Amino acid sequence: VKLLTVARDLQRRKSREKNGLFVAEGVRTVEELLRSPLVIRGALVSPRLAEAERGRVLGLALRERKIAVEDVSDDELGSAADTESPQGVLAIGAVPDRTLSALEVRGNARILVLDAVQDPGNVGALIRTAAALGVTATLALPGTVDLWNAKVVRSAMGAHFHHFCLPGSWEDVDRLRTDHGVALWVADVSGEPLGASDAPARLAVVVGNEGGGLSADARRRADRVISLPVAPAVESLNVAIAAGIILYELRP
Amino acid sequence: VKLLTVARDLQRRKSREKNGLFVAEGVRTVEELLRSPLVIRGALVSPRLAEAERGRVLGLALRERKIAVEDVSDDELGSAADTESPQGVLAIGAVPDRTLSALEVRGNARILVLDAVQDPGNVGALIRTAAALGVTATLALPGTVDLWNAKVVRSAMGAHFHHFCLPGSWEDVDRLRTDHGVALWVADVSGEPLGASDAPARLAVVVGNEGGGLSADARRRADRVISLPVAPAVESLNVAIAAGIILYELRP
Repeated sequence: VKLLTVARDLQRRKSREKNGLFVAEGVRTVEELLRSPLVIRGALVSPRLAEAERGRVLGLALRERKIAVEDVSDDELGSAADTESPQGVLAIGAVPDRTLSALEVRGNARILVLDAVQDPGNVGALIRTAAALGVTATLALPGTVDLWNAKVVRSAMGAHFHHFCLPGSWEDVDRLRTDHGVALWVADVSGEPLGASDAPARLAVVVGNEGGGLSADARRRADRVISLPVAPAVESLNVAIAAGIILYELRP
Repeated sequence: VKLLTVARDLQRRKSREKNGLFVAEGVRTVEELLRSPLVIRGALVSPRLAEAERGRVLGLALRERKIAVEDVSDDELGSAADTESPQGVLAIGAVPDRTLSALEVRGNARILVLDAVQDPGNVGALIRTAAALGVTATLALPGTVDLWNAKVVRSAMGAHFHHFCLPGSWEDVDRLRTDHGVALWVADVSGEPLGASDAPARLAVVVGNEGGGLSADARRRADRVISLPVAPAVESLNVAIAAGIILYELRP
């Protein structure tokens, strides 16, 4: 099967899940993928890539690493890409095999839990932020956009490749609480203002759906509901910015 | 002149600046514009708007406010819009007349300075965040994307309409320093880690170009260069998230 066909098919979540593959688009993301330990199944390259020096170098690096490179037209590349202009390159990577049971939760731990966060750009920004702030793992609960969606991967700028992010369930969250003594703090406008950090050593922070507010599942389990003070004229902070502030404030 | 022609023309920055007009797209942004004190010159409405109850209500509200409404096709609306699917509505608003000299800087003040921030989504998120965190004003320096670009307006989700954001120059920044005793702290990876908040009462925080780092203009003027601790594997935080953390940490 041609790589172009595979890449196009990977635009569907079902295909990504069945094949355990994802697409990384653009020079920077593919560079990060090359630097990571993830397996790369192949790459599509169009003439546009060689137009800039950085792209040309990347094209050479792909071939040096003996990665299967398929030359396609700019239009063909576009037909497999989520972005309008994927900068002439797209790589097919293998989704890393991550399970929550493999996660070592000891000492100070911070876990970010995404409860039905639907916007791919926001989820990408959340993963990038969690990685930057030293969060141990990010768990994407049902209702959250697929972590390996091309737009999520692009927005996270390579953070997926080293940050331990994976899909999960509320049962997984419960196991973190019972087996690892992780406290659950949930962010919601109804919560008490985030104060001076008296955060427990092991803490999971739940952020939710951009418009939908706190879910019943989150409310039921919350050890604490926290909020950030926001000026009255503004409805809310962006979910990724709120999470960034909370994770920074509560850093160990 | 038809409103459709005006709206299409406003996709160009020059036209926005010459006419003092901007375009607000989508149900939520137009709702916020209606709630604001800004002058609305007219609106374009396509059949799609009435498909959802919230849109139908907005269409009625526009007509009740005696705003000039031009009915167009979905395709015509799309031709004037930045978004692919502007939800059947687009309004033309008057850019509010804001000058830095009108700004009252007393007591505790926080000013956000955008030094060549180019991504419209980031600038929109920065304005939304500044508004939410009670920042006094946001100053967009040369090299920053036009604040009234449709994508910036959309990303800020209505924050433009009540938050005092405006274009400015380094000379304006100098005037804030000399005339109002505003200290200038510049965010950059080279800076000293942001510590416990000993921030001065009047503080301007400068954030810069996503890729370009600290400008010479910013470095020369900086009373302090500050950074956020970031995990080694990650190049940086997104500029809007970094600004959110810094503005929250340094809130008065």
